[in-house]
Order: sequence, then structure tokens, then C-alpha cells
Amino acid sequence: MQDFIIIGHKAVTTGGFSLNDMPGSAGRMDILCRCINSVFFLSHDLRRDVQAHLLLLGDPNPPRIIRFNGEKLRYLNPDERSAGALIKKALELNNISSLEIRSTPGVWVRQADLRTLLDEFTGDGRKIFYFREDGEDLRNITEGIKDGVFILGDHLGLTEEEENLVLEMSAGTISVGPLSLHADHCIILIHNELDRVMIDQIQR
Amino acid sequence: MQDFIIIGHKAVTTGGFSLNDMPGSAGRMDILCRCINSVFFLSHDLRRDVQAHLLLLGDPNPPRIIRFNGEKLRYLNPDERSAGALIKKALELNNISSLEIRSTPGVWVRQADLRTLLDEFTGDGRKIFYFREDGEDLRNITEGIKDGVFILGDHLGLTEEEENLVLEMSAGTISVGPLSLHADHCIILIHNELDRVMIDQIQR
Repeated sequence: MQDFIIIGHKAVTTGGFSLNDMPGSAGRMDILCRCINSVFFLSHDLRRDVQAHLLLLGDPNPPRIIRFNGEKLRYLNPDERSAGALIKKALELNNISSLEIRSTPGVWVRQADLRTLLDEFTGDGRKIFYFREDGEDLRNITEGIKDGVFILGDHLGLTEEEENLVLEMSAGTISVGPLSLHADHCIILIHNELDRVMIDQIQR
Repeated sequence: MQDFIIIGHKAVTTGGFSLNDMPGSAGRMDILCRCINSVFFLSHDLRRDVQAHLLLLGDPNPPRIIRFNGEKLRYLNPDERSAGALIKKALELNNISSLEIRSTPGVWVRQADLRTLLDEFTGDGRKIFYFREDGEDLRNITEGIKDGVFILGDHLGLTEEEENLVLEMSAGTISVGPLSLHADHCIILIHNELDRVMIDQIQR
């Protein structure tokens, strides 16, 4: 299984946002919605063996983590509003605590921060990878990133504090290519690399 | 320069559609919007040496071709509604004919069909590529696809008639990997391959 963590520094932590203004008053929620599309969609199918963890750090109730699980996920369409509606439903729950609760099939929400999430993954022996332009080329380390946990930032990248935490806990930094890309585009490139590894292994 | 042609078989050809219902009453206009994002966006920048041609075949005025040119393009943000608003503005013009007219900076619209568009490209000596799962792996023909014209379908793929036309005029069929992907995801993979070719050439 692959896990993708996407950090939304300004993404609001209330269900009161408008699906008509996700880039504005919802704090660039559109970025997180596009990442959900990239994590899960195949042509006429969903990727099942994958999860997305949205870390929302905007007002008024940060931090919130919304987890999407491909195996259980329902009611997701490819458009931004569809992912936005599932995020909204999760944030609308009024009993959110550090214990995860389910909002819709395949979607859970809780109060938790980046360190908590990374501790859980490293506790399970999972390898964490961080994307940076000066990282190792994805194509050189394909097998090593199988079952990886991938951390991606929003339009603001990662703060210095977050980057220090991630570098301390990560197995390595990765680059997807010569140009700097949006998080949702990086996810497509990671998936493609891993799809190719998977097929190679089946055909061997 | 790369050119991407994306066919929207149900995409409406009137500016009267709602930005709040692009997957529904606008005829999967959301697919075309995501393709516009994939064609143009870099992190904090736009790709300049690239064009997108949306072929809209839905009611009430098909066919329409909307051309986006990266060098001239303005007022485009990454979210689906932003691309949708530019498409809407183009379709709202009331003097659309077979002569291209500009709706906003970097966006033009006209009445034209697939054959007309492909004839123009082949007349200019450009190579046309079509994406199909049984095509040649993108990674094996990287240099050959430079300055290519890439044809992608929406959720319906291409009709038999379109496919026959394209195969007759194309330089080859290409596959982006072992799984069948959405058009906007294929575009990301093409760009990445060409970015790598470009950097290799600079570094040689």
C-alpha cells in the first residue's frame, strides 16, 4: 500500500466553506481536492491499495487529518467539487477528537498533527519520502519506494519546522523530474513509476 | 512546441452552462478543465511553449474548437472553475464562425471539426500521436515525440470514426504505462518525459 500525506497550510478546518470558492475563502482547498483525484483515479476505476491523508492547518480548528481509504471509498467523482463535498462532510461532524470517526464510507477525520501521523507510520516500519527538487530521481529508486509514505506540500511548500521534522524521520528525498510541479502532478508520476514496477514484477 | 487536442463528446457548446455543475449539465466539462490545468501548470509558473485545443461536440452548436496558447494566456488559475470560466467566456461570443476570434488573452474560439484541425497540423509537417493502451511505451520513443501533437479522449474515448481518422493521420500510438488513465493524467506523464529529454539535451 502507498500512503500520501498532503499538507494544506491554509485549508479551513470547518465544514462551513463554500464549494464555489475553494481556492479563496476555503484556503486553497482546491489543491487538496486535486490531490484526492490524483491519488485515487484510474480510467473507469479507483485505485484500491492506497490512502490519502489531508492535513488541514487553517482556521478555526487546526489541526485536522482527513483520511481517505481506497478500498472502502465511495461517492467520489473526479471533479474538485466531489472531493470538496466529502471533505466538507468530514469537517461538519461536531464530535471530532483525537479518535478517528467515519464521516462517509472510506473517509475518516480526527484531530492530529504531522508528528503524530509520522510517528504512526514509522512505528509500523513504513518508509517516509519527501519531495524536493534536489532529491534523488524517482526513476533511480523505483523498487525502494514501494509501500512508501509520500509527503507533499501545498502552494506554500513545507515550513522550516515541518521540513526539519520530515527530514529527521524520512528515508530520503525524491525528485520527480527536472521541473518543479504541483503536488497533484507529482502523485501521478509516483503512481506511474510504481505501476511500472508492479507490472515488471508480475511479468518476471 | 507541444499541442494537445482533447475531445469532449458531450461538452456543451453554449456559454450558458453553470460552473457549479460542470460534470452534469455541462457535459463533463470538468474533464476538459482538468486537462487545461495539466497542459499549462508548473509550480508557480505556466508552461509557455504549449497549446491546448478543446474540441467540444455537445449541443447546441457543435463543433467548436477552443484554443489556449501558453505564451499569451492570462487569467488562468489551477482550479477547475477558473478554466471553466475561460471556456464559458469563449462560448458566450455571439459571432463564432470558422474564423478564429479571441475571447480573452491567450484563448480563441471557432467552428471547426477534428479533420480540419488535424489537416492543419499535418499541413505544417507536425507529427500526430494517439494514446492507446496497446501503443508504444512513451519512454521508448521520447525524442521522437518532441514537438508532437497529442490526441486524447474524454470519458468516452474516441468514436470508431474518430479513431479511424486519427489512425490514418497519426505517426503512431503511444501508451503512458501499464494502466489506463484519465486524459489529464496522461498529459502529466507526457510533459515529464519531454522535460527529461529537454534537460538531457541542455546538459549534453
